[in-house]
Amino acid sequence: MMRALDLAEAIEAGDLTPATVLELSLEAIEVREADIRAFAHLDPDRARVMARHIPGTDGLFGLPIGFKDIIDTADLPTGYGSPIYAGHRPAADAPIVVMCEATQGLTLGKTATTEMAYLNPAPTFNPHNPKHTPGGSSAGSAAGVAAGFMPLAFGTQTGGSVIRPASFCGVAAMKPSYRLLPVQGVKPFAPLLDTLGLFGARVVDVAFGLAAISGRDLRVDGGDFGIPRFGVTRLPFAGEAERESEEALAHAIAALGTAGFPVADIDLPAAFADAHHAHKAINDFEGATSLLWEYTHRRDQLSPVLLQAIEAGRAISIAEFDRSRSLANRARKASHALFDDVDVVLTFSAPGLAPGRESTGDARYNKLVTLLGLPAVNVPGWRDSVTNLPVGVQVFGAFGDDQRVLAAAAMLEAALAKTA
Amino acid sequence: MMRALDLAEAIEAGDLTPATVLELSLEAIEVREADIRAFAHLDPDRARVMARHIPGTDGLFGLPIGFKDIIDTADLPTGYGSPIYAGHRPAADAPIVVMCEATQGLTLGKTATTEMAYLNPAPTFNPHNPKHTPGGSSAGSAAGVAAGFMPLAFGTQTGGSVIRPASFCGVAAMKPSYRLLPVQGVKPFAPLLDTLGLFGARVVDVAFGLAAISGRDLRVDGGDFGIPRFGVTRLPFAGEAERESEEALAHAIAALGTAGFPVADIDLPAAFADAHHAHKAINDFEGATSLLWEYTHRRDQLSPVLLQAIEAGRAISIAEFDRSRSLANRARKASHALFDDVDVVLTFSAPGLAPGRESTGDARYNKLVTLLGLPAVNVPGWRDSVTNLPVGVQVFGAFGDDQRVLAAAAMLEAALAKTA
Repeated sequence: MMRALDLAEAIEAGDLTPATVLELSLEAIEVREADIRAFAHLDPDRARVMARHIPGTDGLFGLPIGFKDIIDTADLPTGYGSPIYAGHRPAADAPIVVMCEATQGLTLGKTATTEMAYLNPAPTFNPHNPKHTPGGSSAGSAAGVAAGFMPLAFGTQTGGSVIRPASFCGVAAMKPSYRLLPVQGVKPFAPLLDTLGLFGARVVDVAFGLAAISGRDLRVDGGDFGIPRFGVTRLPFAGEAERESEEALAHAIAALGTAGFPVADIDLPAAFADAHHAHKAINDFEGATSLLWEYTHRRDQLSPVLLQAIEAGRAISIAEFDRSRSLANRARKASHALFDDVDVVLTFSAPGLAPGRESTGDARYNKLVTLLGLPAVNVPGWRDSVTNLPVGVQVFGAFGDDQRVLAAAAMLEAALAKTA
Repeated sequence: MMRALDLAEAIEAGDLTPATVLELSLEAIEVREADIRAFAHLDPDRARVMARHIPGTDGLFGLPIGFKDIIDTADLPTGYGSPIYAGHRPAADAPIVVMCEATQGLTLGKTATTEMAYLNPAPTFNPHNPKHTPGGSSAGSAAGVAAGFMPLAFGTQTGGSVIRPASFCGVAAMKPSYRLLPVQGVKPFAPLLDTLGLFGARVVDVAFGLAAISGRDLRVDGGDFGIPRFGVTRLPFAGEAERESEEALAHAIAALGTAGFPVADIDLPAAFADAHHAHKAINDFEGATSLLWEYTHRRDQLSPVLLQAIEAGRAISIAEFDRSRSLANRARKASHALFDDVDVVLTFSAPGLAPGRESTGDARYNKLVTLLGLPAVNVPGWRDSVTNLPVGVQVFGAFGDDQRVLAAAAMLEAALAKTA
């Protein structure tokens, strides 16, 4: 994989240039893209022209960035993973694209997404085994980073569309606190949930990218972040995990213990279970609203799975939607007390290994954290001994405590590396 | 003015048809639009074709609806009040447009907006006196309803862009609770604040329209809504009002007293003052982010006032933005206790009469309510005896308590009518 932090340091040191890094990226794509299909749109020549004009002196140092194809770009087609929008050219770039370019990021291309970032699979293959899904909805961003096509790529999460594909593809990723990154110009699905996230090789790479783009103190390479107090939960209201995820979690707990980090079993506030179950009504109700034009005027171009979801959303009563918002608010308030006793919480990223390509996997360990708007990181570093497929674990924390979550996740990642 | 509720009842009774109501609308436009300039785009022939196909049996009964020109329409140009987007045709309708059409609303045209819904005035004139602003940013919707061009029109409020122009134009309007109406497909300015609102002749008309469109129990014609307990505040942290707004408020208090409603002076929670002052940082910071593409790539097509606002927003530190969000959350929590003692709060809608056309007026009595996401209604019914210009008063209530706010506002409107 391309490590963003190392590449940026090499460019800063004069050992690489943005143009040479881009060629590394394009070579990897040349070799494997036909088998991975991470991109919805890629224009190598445009990227080469841009790379020549990036000084590589600061910020993202000219690193190539992938953008999930529900993020608007004025100069590249933006198809939202749907035939309705084939060849669509938005009038403007989403702010996140301009923010990346303003800090010397190179817009490499648009990465494959499930249809409207919902469940209908993208054409992308899991780089570790083409029989398996890369996860969704940010399929191309996760698979592309895993395949070494680019050091950083943006996805979005409404249920589990950042953390789950990161787990399945064996890469690091963060879904930051709600609205830490701007979602203007990103095709909405459920605005109360939709959150931009970033994929990278390691946690320190993701933190480096997020810091450069947002201007926030988020880097966790170097610096003293203390000894985080980890709490562990299996999110019991979300059902049981499969063997592989249980093993990955047990392995992470053991690695933390070996590294000398305190790890405590915790009970979650009762309001969390209610909020977990409330996610679906908010997701489906708002999704049906967001896609009302498509449902009304382009219904024959919607997949059966998306059409069914919209119809399910339309069947949700306003009373249930309002009640679900209230439950979410109650759980957000309850989350404050949780973080009196622990700094971060360790749990599953996904129920198990990446399933086959007919599905994008299950977001049941991600929905609550998304609904509460809490920062969450997928920590890679463990592989199933039978299939050799990766399985990640999830670290989440208090609203706005993004740097601490990144720091704890990086410490866990380092602890896992020592056990390998 | 065209009264939505009366027109709908006449259509239901068979005394009017959607086509005849449309002709009333078009006749009024024919007579006065050149002097008012409420529309950014109007296509009478398209509207006539649509009117013939609306049965007029339910919902909005074929009533013509105006949409502020920051609301995306696939079949009508959407210019966002900016030369950057002259002739822009979005790929899809905003959900609110489809929702209106799904309930037998007739999309009449796009109403004039200030540039990107910020402060650079729209070309619109105040129907009561062309030397005065109709207010902003929803200038065309307020002026158009006041001029009798259409019974209902949508605007948006980020600071005071619904309540303020309604006050200046002498019409009723509601800014509902945050996210009661979907803002997908509406050009974002500050997503933490942006709220769709509706203008109509009277409070009962606005309530009728909102109920039909949202499917919520919001109507307040007929039914027993009890005796609302009114609290009164002058929002002291927002500065003093001018003579005319003081008189309008005093008149409203007197009318309520005469009508037998309890009215109590109230003290607002201390957190409200902090939140009032926090509005600006959130507004400007998010506005600068939303318009980052325009600022970066089309700067020469931005007005000086908008450019200055974007640059002010870019100068706001992340720490100040985060702190402002925290202050807003604290005030939201504090607002619950306020509504233990009163049902609704009466205050100013605007500092005074509509100023001249070089400005759109001041939103200082609206910002807090917008930031807290509370439902608010402008109640018209009072005119300054010197200038004969209208001045409204504002009624707001607890989050989610939209029907009670409408009911109390309608009772106040009726009480004012008795004093006329």
